Amino acid sequence: MSTPDKVQQAPHETSQSAAAGEGESLRKRLNRIIFGWDTPAGKLFDLCLIWAISISVLVLMLESVEWIVREYEPWLRAAEWTFTLLFTAEYLTRIYCAERRWAYIKSFYGIVDLLSILPSYLAFFIPGANNLLIIRLLRVLRIFRILKLARYLSEANLLMRTMMLARRKIFVFFSSVLVLSVIFGSLMYMVEGPAHGFTSIPKSIYWTIVTITTVGYGDIVPQTILGQIISAAAMLTGYSIIAVPTGILTAELAQEMQRDRHRRYCPGCQRSGHEADAAHCKHCGEALPEAK
Amino acid sequence: MSTPDKVQQAPHETSQSAAAGEGESLRKRLNRIIFGWDTPAGKLFDLCLIWAISISVLVLMLESVEWIVREYEPWLRAAEWTFTLLFTAEYLTRIYCAERRWAYIKSFYGIVDLLSILPSYLAFFIPGANNLLIIRLLRVLRIFRILKLARYLSEANLLMRTMMLARRKIFVFFSSVLVLSVIFGSLMYMVEGPAHGFTSIPKSIYWTIVTITTVGYGDIVPQTILGQIISAAAMLTGYSIIAVPTGILTAELAQEMQRDRHRRYCPGCQRSGHEADAAHCKHCGEALPEAK
Amino acid sequence: MSTPDKVQQAPHETSQSAAAGEGESLRKRLNRIIFGWDTPAGKLFDLCLIWAISISVLVLMLESVEWIVREYEPWLRAAEWTFTLLFTAEYLTRIYCAERRWAYIKSFYGIVDLLSILPSYLAFFIPGANNLLIIRLLRVLRIFRILKLARYLSEANLLMRTMMLARRKIFVFFSSVLVLSVIFGSLMYMVEGPAHGFTSIPKSIYWTIVTITTVGYGDIVPQTILGQIISAAAMLTGYSIIAVPTGILTAELAQEMQRDRHRRYCPGCQRSGHEADAAHCKHCGEALPEAK
Amino acid sequence: MSTPDKVQQAPHETSQSAAAGEGESLRKRLNRIIFGWDTPAGKLFDLCLIWAISISVLVLMLESVEWIVREYEPWLRAAEWTFTLLFTAEYLTRIYCAERRWAYIKSFYGIVDLLSILPSYLAFFIPGANNLLIIRLLRVLRIFRILKLARYLSEANLLMRTMMLARRKIFVFFSSVLVLSVIFGSLMYMVEGPAHGFTSIPKSIYWTIVTITTVGYGDIVPQTILGQIISAAAMLTGYSIIAVPTGILTAELAQEMQRDRHRRYCPGCQRSGHEADAAHCKHCGEALPEAK
Repeated sequence: MSTPDKVQQAPHETSQSAAAGEGESLRKRLNRIIFGWDTPAGKLFDLCLIWAISISVLVLMLESVEWIVREYEPWLRAAEWTFTLLFTAEYLTRIYCAERRWAYIKSFYGIVDLLSILPSYLAFFIPGANNLLIIRLLRVLRIFRILKLARYLSEANLLMRTMMLARRKIFVFFSSVLVLSVIFGSLMYMVEGPAHGFTSIPKSIYWTIVTITTVGYGDIVPQTILGQIISAAAMLTGYSIIAVPTGILTAELAQEMQRDRHRRYCPGCQRSGHEADAAHCKHCGEALPEAK
Repeated sequence: MSTPDKVQQAPHETSQSAAAGEGESLRKRLNRIIFGWDTPAGKLFDLCLIWAISISVLVLMLESVEWIVREYEPWLRAAEWTFTLLFTAEYLTRIYCAERRWAYIKSFYGIVDLLSILPSYLAFFIPGANNLLIIRLLRVLRIFRILKLARYLSEANLLMRTMMLARRKIFVFFSSVLVLSVIFGSLMYMVEGPAHGFTSIPKSIYWTIVTITTVGYGDIVPQTILGQIISAAAMLTGYSIIAVPTGILTAELAQEMQRDRHRRYCPGCQRSGHEADAAHCKHCGEALPEAK
Repeated sequence: MSTPDKVQQAPHETSQSAAAGEGESLRKRLNRIIFGWDTPAGKLFDLCLIWAISISVLVLMLESVEWIVREYEPWLRAAEWTFTLLFTAEYLTRIYCAERRWAYIKSFYGIVDLLSILPSYLAFFIPGANNLLIIRLLRVLRIFRILKLARYLSEANLLMRTMMLARRKIFVFFSSVLVLSVIFGSLMYMVEGPAHGFTSIPKSIYWTIVTITTVGYGDIVPQTILGQIISAAAMLTGYSIIAVPTGILTAELAQEMQRDRHRRYCPGCQRSGHEADAAHCKHCGEALPEAK
Repeated sequence: MSTPDKVQQAPHETSQSAAAGEGESLRKRLNRIIFGWDTPAGKLFDLCLIWAISISVLVLMLESVEWIVREYEPWLRAAEWTFTLLFTAEYLTRIYCAERRWAYIKSFYGIVDLLSILPSYLAFFIPGANNLLIIRLLRVLRIFRILKLARYLSEANLLMRTMMLARRKIFVFFSSVLVLSVIFGSLMYMVEGPAHGFTSIPKSIYWTIVTITTVGYGDIVPQTILGQIISAAAMLTGYSIIAVPTGILTAELAQEMQRDRHRRYCPGCQRSGHEADAAHCKHCGEALPEAK
């Protein structure tokens, strides 16, 4: 999550001490505010951005509610254009002050930033009622802006790392779930048949996933005795294999948290193994560097 | 949970040895019974209070069942007024005997105590059939009295502490669930549309939460093939990310329980690491202080 | 689970070596077969009993299916009377050969044994169509016979012990769930009201439990926007607090399994800490006593 | 999972160094490609096979969708026959080059391989519209081909081993769930009765499983107050006992992963305890053998 920004971050990592340094160009200062978060201004900018994104997504959602559109259309339109212009300004500034412009433009967040403002302009240049629907679909991509939130939460890294370590076990688990779904789905198609709503094997597989994950909409329901027995087996299977990913993740997470404790070293006595909430070394009382 | 009472508790912590001391005023004795639970009388009072709260909440619930009201209205009314008067007496006594009166009145439980008796009196002074509904809504707050139960269970502290430690990880998890809900909800609104019950993005997000949490009411159900595929993806996502909070909590709880064992020291040999149910030191056999 | 039989078991624990001893009375031999499971005959008897109980419960269940009763009534009746007579014979033999007769008769399994045969005879002596329904209800108690199965599985003990250790934490958890249900239920009754199916607070609480446990029947469903927001909150709450009992149990179970390893001592070098599937001491190679 | 192939694998395990050896017969070379996966050709073959199986299963599923059959029947038929012929060729080659032919033919995968091609030929020789349905049922067996995927994932072994270790605890758990289902099912049949959809005890047990596993279709729903109270109890039971298998598996998995770390020895200093992702010994820096 933090890698895409590495290209812009790298030069700041040692610049904190030189923050008061003069002769710094506007571009460098802007860069530190927009891409970095090690200065008060940078933190404030990021916070405002998160709020702007959240509210713009909210406006987008409200635009789909009929009675709200009927009553507050001018306000929604105004809000939308305000955000579009704000995000355009932000996008252009980012291009202006990025260390390596093309690296930013081609990065994941660069593309998302562009896609989140483009649809509004496209709707402007290509009028026509029939195009609105397609453009709205593109607009939804602006939601991905929220993904940027993840950047700010160092806690997410531990979860990410754990999932990376467990990814092969989780893949095995999902393959098993899919194979089980195909087997149970085919069986149910045979047993219940189109007359009871199991109109095709893909639909039966959809039903099996609804059942195994214990969602259970009830739109399709087994009606024969044999079908109900197979369903019960599918439910119990789903009910118990949910233990597998939990077990995998917990075991990996416990190991990872253990390892995390050994990553912090006391500057006084060089010993590690401090608890996550420890502020002082338990051996010599020296103040510890902040956790993670 | 135990912090709001710190203001009243503090003076008793050393008073247990002086419990038989004479010359103690009525106020001090009442204080020990009502706010403390280190004397037999205090324990009895708390137990009675819990039962009174539980029964008063039950009466409140039964008042909403039509046929019970029709048949037993006088009894319900009598019970309600009995409890209101009892709780009023308790509230006034608490104010009378609290160490610092304003600290109690302004504390969380002080406000809850007041709110749980106020509506009954308001209904008395402000008559009128049309006001009944609003007052009933306030009455529901009396339910918060049950929260007082938590005070009496020391076991709750371990769970609370664990959740405090895991709060940032849990926040990251909930943010991810919300982002996923917004993405899946918007997608489903595009794919299924108002014709199949997905009348707006907020409603689609509601549907996504129903699906991801594996509740699955079945009031709104995907009907297109693409919609069913996306639903299946949402279900499998929800089914597997439930492992994340479990993993987080288990790992934290295991660490916390480990730490708990190291908090108890043998008065004989000063060694820690005793199991939670140990009554004697495993090293020298000395009786241990009670766990937690 | 194994405690109720302690009274009968005790004398056998040292009798295994004297199994071939002559002069043993019939009563003692029967006792060992029926109450004990340390001889081949005792094991065979227990296995037959489990099968007999299972089949008798199955017959009982089939008796409630209309078309099966219509076609196979004589067979079902015959099966039922065979099992009733068999279980009566078993009950009388148990009384005859128990070490302390009254201790058996008054024990939990003694009462269950009696209750599982009584209804059939009651139906015989007290005829009348209107009594059938009540008697059938008593018959269901025969199902509790299955509970005897638990006796034979030593593995159940570890789970039982873990739950005993975690019982206070689990009680705190259930109290919280109930308080949450009452709060959410009352809120939904206020917001949705009788018009949308939330006819009373108890019914709203039922709906909340259906939602929090992620069952989600869909028989009652929120229809106002505010109701759907509160529902979503209830679902997310239920979805995440499921992590709490899992975390509690896993942490306790891990500790208990750890402790279990330290209960087995090597007869050669007296060292403990052997894994559950170890047959030989990892220090000196001596054969270990069987695990648990 | 890997055992059925032991008979064919054994001779290759030491043949990797002799891979360039001449004078090797065609049969031996084919054997290594088809049964083994330690050569580039063998890996490629396995990959192609997995894709062929997946696509053939997909074709099979699409054949059950009415409108797809109506439009693309010739294509589906062509695809099906292509796969049937391909799999026949594969089956014959496997028989030709297996070390011990009968061992392969009688092995689980040998029978599955045969069953996955047989139905297509049977449909050819035994024409008749009315037979199609039965044959289609046999065809579904071809799906079991997917099970072969499990062979390729070494990660599955850890999960398998853990489940083997936990199998007795899981059996106890499932017995408890079944006993609970029978008890709750019978109770609900008594309380709700045929008038509210609980037409027989087996159907009530089906409903109980739907409820305890938190699937909750909503096709049968309690309507009396007592029934709703019992349902709530069943839901809360199901909601909390899901913690049991999770706890069991997590505890076992954590132990197993711990043990796994101690299975890898450094070729330099002979010390074990290396983490799963370690490539070098943490003590002497020597390169470690690949994990698992």
